[in-house]
Amino acid sequence: MARWEPGSRERLQQAALDLFAEQGYDETTVAQIAARAGVTDRTFFRQFSDKREVLFAGSERLLALFVDAVAASPATDPLQITTDALHAAAEFFPQDRLPWSRTRADLVFTHPALAEREQLKMVTLASAVAKALRERGIGEPAASLLAHSTITVFQVSFDVWLREGDERSMQDVQRETFDALRSTLTPASPPPA
Amino acid sequence: MARWEPGSRERLQQAALDLFAEQGYDETTVAQIAARAGVTDRTFFRQFSDKREVLFAGSERLLALFVDAVAASPATDPLQITTDALHAAAEFFPQDRLPWSRTRADLVFTHPALAEREQLKMVTLASAVAKALRERGIGEPAASLLAHSTITVFQVSFDVWLREGDERSMQDVQRETFDALRSTLTPASPPPA
Repeated sequence: MARWEPGSRERLQQAALDLFAEQGYDETTVAQIAARAGVTDRTFFRQFSDKREVLFAGSERLLALFVDAVAASPATDPLQITTDALHAAAEFFPQDRLPWSRTRADLVFTHPALAEREQLKMVTLASAVAKALRERGIGEPAASLLAHSTITVFQVSFDVWLREGDERSMQDVQRETFDALRSTLTPASPPPA
Repeated sequence: MARWEPGSRERLQQAALDLFAEQGYDETTVAQIAARAGVTDRTFFRQFSDKREVLFAGSERLLALFVDAVAASPATDPLQITTDALHAAAEFFPQDRLPWSRTRADLVFTHPALAEREQLKMVTLASAVAKALRERGIGEPAASLLAHSTITVFQVSFDVWLREGDERSMQDVQRETFDALRSTLTPASPPPA
């Protein structure tokens, strides 16, 4: 027997995003979100600790996708391990998630406290990926450099995907971004011997 | 005529760091810092807005070093421009700054709110460098990728410098870290054609 109403989580997320857009994030209360979703406040609090968590509840799952993929990658080449991790993380962003992700990003980046939280989420991701790489036996500074680069590719790709995502999947964008990163870091001409 | 006591800024910074180490950051007041430095509270507030700013007052100068160097670099190759910017930023960390930087880092990274502030400082740096690169005519995503990579090299190098900086300068560490970044992002064998 379900401990909460089936589908209530998704309904609460949609109701929250609609209300944030309609009347502002600061002005929206948990009671209003629950009412719009047709559930009680108690149902809200079974799913989320507060209204901010509605926007950030996916963070742990995204982090787990990255970290589990690093641990599970059949590759031994560190670069291939991070490529596998990016590939796994992209599954979190199927094309039908675009409208939610766009609306959420518009909200988060016009709200300084939410934008800070989003940035700190990226820092946490980079640290977690670095740790997972060290656990695969990759030493420093390679583990940190690869982890930061992985999150760089993820962040830059996510912005591109939000902007032009109707055409390209997150996985395709990430692949191109990773290639672009490598090419921007390649000297125009070989350094003098 | 000086508007504040000569040398009071450095004395206040040292006094604050000593007191934070001796009795804890949270327990230390501005009045105690001023008294230890032998100046009035008013002199403190002419230099810093609060005790946290004593630890972060250098941020704007570091950011200016990066941004000004991107603007002023004689190079046209984007990679060389960022290399010049890293070189300029390293001037902010001469070897005689090591003891202060080490004590400051120990404090910041054992204090979650200060560590968050430090991380957000890095995010601000990356955004500022990306903007400066775009103003040099470098397009996206290259500008963002290079800016993030510049800050990655800076951050990883700074950790290495703090750990083993008695031997190597920040500039030398950064040069090696940049090489390490490029080599970690180079595929072990060429991808199949």
